Amino acid sequence: MGRLTGGDPSLLRRINSAVVLYALRAADSATLTALVQVTGLSRPTVEGVVEGLIEIGLVAETAAEEGGTRRQGRPARRFRFRAEAGHLLGIEIGSHRIAALLSDLGGRTLDSEQRPVDETVPADERLERVRTLVAELLRRAGVARRSLRAVGVGSPGIVEADGTVRLGTALPGWTGLPLGERLRRSFRCPVLVENDANAAAVAEHWKGVAVESDDIVFVLAGLSPGAGSLIGGRLHRGFGGAAGEIGALHLLGREATPEALLSTTGKPLTPLDEAQVAAVFALARDGDGQAREAVDRFIRRLVHDVAALVLALDPQLVVVGGWAAGLAGVLEPLRGELARYCLRPPQVALSELGEAAVSTGALRLALDHVEGELFTVEGTVTGRQGRPPVRGTSP
Amino acid sequence: MGRLTGGDPSLLRRINSAVVLYALRAADSATLTALVQVTGLSRPTVEGVVEGLIEIGLVAETAAEEGGTRRQGRPARRFRFRAEAGHLLGIEIGSHRIAALLSDLGGRTLDSEQRPVDETVPADERLERVRTLVAELLRRAGVARRSLRAVGVGSPGIVEADGTVRLGTALPGWTGLPLGERLRRSFRCPVLVENDANAAAVAEHWKGVAVESDDIVFVLAGLSPGAGSLIGGRLHRGFGGAAGEIGALHLLGREATPEALLSTTGKPLTPLDEAQVAAVFALARDGDGQAREAVDRFIRRLVHDVAALVLALDPQLVVVGGWAAGLAGVLEPLRGELARYCLRPPQVALSELGEAAVSTGALRLALDHVEGELFTVEGTVTGRQGRPPVRGTSP
Repeated sequence: MGRLTGGDPSLLRRINSAVVLYALRAADSATLTALVQVTGLSRPTVEGVVEGLIEIGLVAETAAEEGGTRRQGRPARRFRFRAEAGHLLGIEIGSHRIAALLSDLGGRTLDSEQRPVDETVPADERLERVRTLVAELLRRAGVARRSLRAVGVGSPGIVEADGTVRLGTALPGWTGLPLGERLRRSFRCPVLVENDANAAAVAEHWKGVAVESDDIVFVLAGLSPGAGSLIGGRLHRGFGGAAGEIGALHLLGREATPEALLSTTGKPLTPLDEAQVAAVFALARDGDGQAREAVDRFIRRLVHDVAALVLALDPQLVVVGGWAAGLAGVLEPLRGELARYCLRPPQVALSELGEAAVSTGALRLALDHVEGELFTVEGTVTGRQGRPPVRGTSP
Repeated sequence: MGRLTGGDPSLLRRINSAVVLYALRAADSATLTALVQVTGLSRPTVEGVVEGLIEIGLVAETAAEEGGTRRQGRPARRFRFRAEAGHLLGIEIGSHRIAALLSDLGGRTLDSEQRPVDETVPADERLERVRTLVAELLRRAGVARRSLRAVGVGSPGIVEADGTVRLGTALPGWTGLPLGERLRRSFRCPVLVENDANAAAVAEHWKGVAVESDDIVFVLAGLSPGAGSLIGGRLHRGFGGAAGEIGALHLLGREATPEALLSTTGKPLTPLDEAQVAAVFALARDGDGQAREAVDRFIRRLVHDVAALVLALDPQLVVVGGWAAGLAGVLEPLRGELARYCLRPPQVALSELGEAAVSTGALRLALDHVEGELFTVEGTVTGRQGRPPVRGTSP
């Protein structure tokens, strides 16, 4: 009979600690007896692990009165995960808006803030405004900056693994910006930077319209659509972080740019901004023939780009978000065309999180990072979101 | 201190057996002492496991004279993996060709056979021809049918997990055909059916141009291009097995069909077969203006479809195979256009395996299945191809 070879005591201790913490977080509070049952560990092991977790502030003993069945004699001690032991931020840095969400270690949102920002604001000033917004948010919530355990950021562009923006044409000064490094100076905790559409995909899977779907494409439908996708519940970034950057596709067909597509005068719409586009959509709704044609052209292009994503990836569900999703009925033409041309048409749904999608996804990425630190032991747990640690101990 | 909970003796025995077998397969032959060193197991455990593997025919003792250092006194016993203990088939069932590869349990090719088949041949007859071809191949190689451990099959169409063709327009009677079930009746061993482009992607990653790349798109460039992709070294099938079926994309743009694209007369080319297409390409090479324009249109469409895949997936490498790849210089225009329009252009290469790509990939899928059975213990090994079993025992 074999034994576990190379049995490293400190590795086993860390596995046991992760298992107990995971079980505690899944419950409101638990007794030692319950933890022994759920984890399969011995009582002395659980006791030792819980003491260690109390010492580092991640677990607290609850007052015996709080819930739980009392027995005769001394009530059983109960323990809980201290979600308040740390905090997380999810930040969106967009072309027209900055926003931030603050949560505890359990991912519960404590407060949020957002502010419009002009698309012409340079990178340094944009970052300064993010810092100001976060400082106000923390002050209002009474959370110390040193309590932050991780910060997630969603922003347009192709983002490298280290948080540098490789290419980002939507924001001035964004291409080449070491965004992660710049923000790490402010926060002194891990900062995870992600493409905005990718973050939104993660958000809809976490608490939006895609909670039941592991294979999704999120289309951030603006002037130039971007997309994020999850495959088997995991973010698909692509080899160089550029997956889903479908906006360039129309260039190949030598089709018109959005400026030309949406023109009702024959001349390109410049500057092409949301107000201009909204005006064209409004005209179309009022029955203006040229505006209707322009909107049709715009939707056809969106449908084409989304179809390309769907044919390449074969997702279960396509989620449409971004401002264009709100302007007109893009959903019905999209469903119709996908059903017509895709060999296996996916479901199509509107984003449930709307404007909060990017910051919510950024928060989830920060939470993933912290959960990875708390619950993962190298080589023993898959990277899948929300998965339990080794030895399936989920109660 | 914790111990492995629920220590199931038979689970541990299976893990140990998988580890020893994996170590033996990686070496030509090995002594018990070497196995003890490599696996970290105790000598009695290794002895017990090896005896068990000899009993079921997967391991043999080699003659002491075969290689190895002799010492004074009794030479150390040496053992080897019996690759000849079973056999595998990789089969291509295409519209114009059927082909089969035979290998041993180690994946070494023993023999192969291929035969042209007309695209109009009905499904039953096509399957009958496959059976005949396989019977001849087995007879020639002196391999008994009962020695087959798994059969992989690559064929056009969207293939369900159970081996049923959900949609396959390239072959008569293919849509709805329970291909896996039909072939399991002939082979009485596991039969794994996969889309042809998916199989080809697996093949190029195994022993073709993509051995160094884990994120690839294989484009099977025919009249209607199909594609297979690997993400992180694993096949991406999509939610419904339809990923990469990019051929429908041109319909969306209301662009012309291949029949019209390749016409030099203004009338659609019918029937559009390889001979007709080859003739157009030959005319173009001879300087015919209309043929050149037709070829340009055809290549533009291919470039557009591939670009859609690349923008959606962001692979490291695009491999171009299929007959269109051989007809004209598609590589250079593809590289140029991808560099122009993709935010992060991938490398582009021609298939190295050529016509053997689909059957080779089908063989690899059969090998994966058998390796999964031999080397995997539930929940302990990732599904990644070629990965060692638990406890990193690769010598």
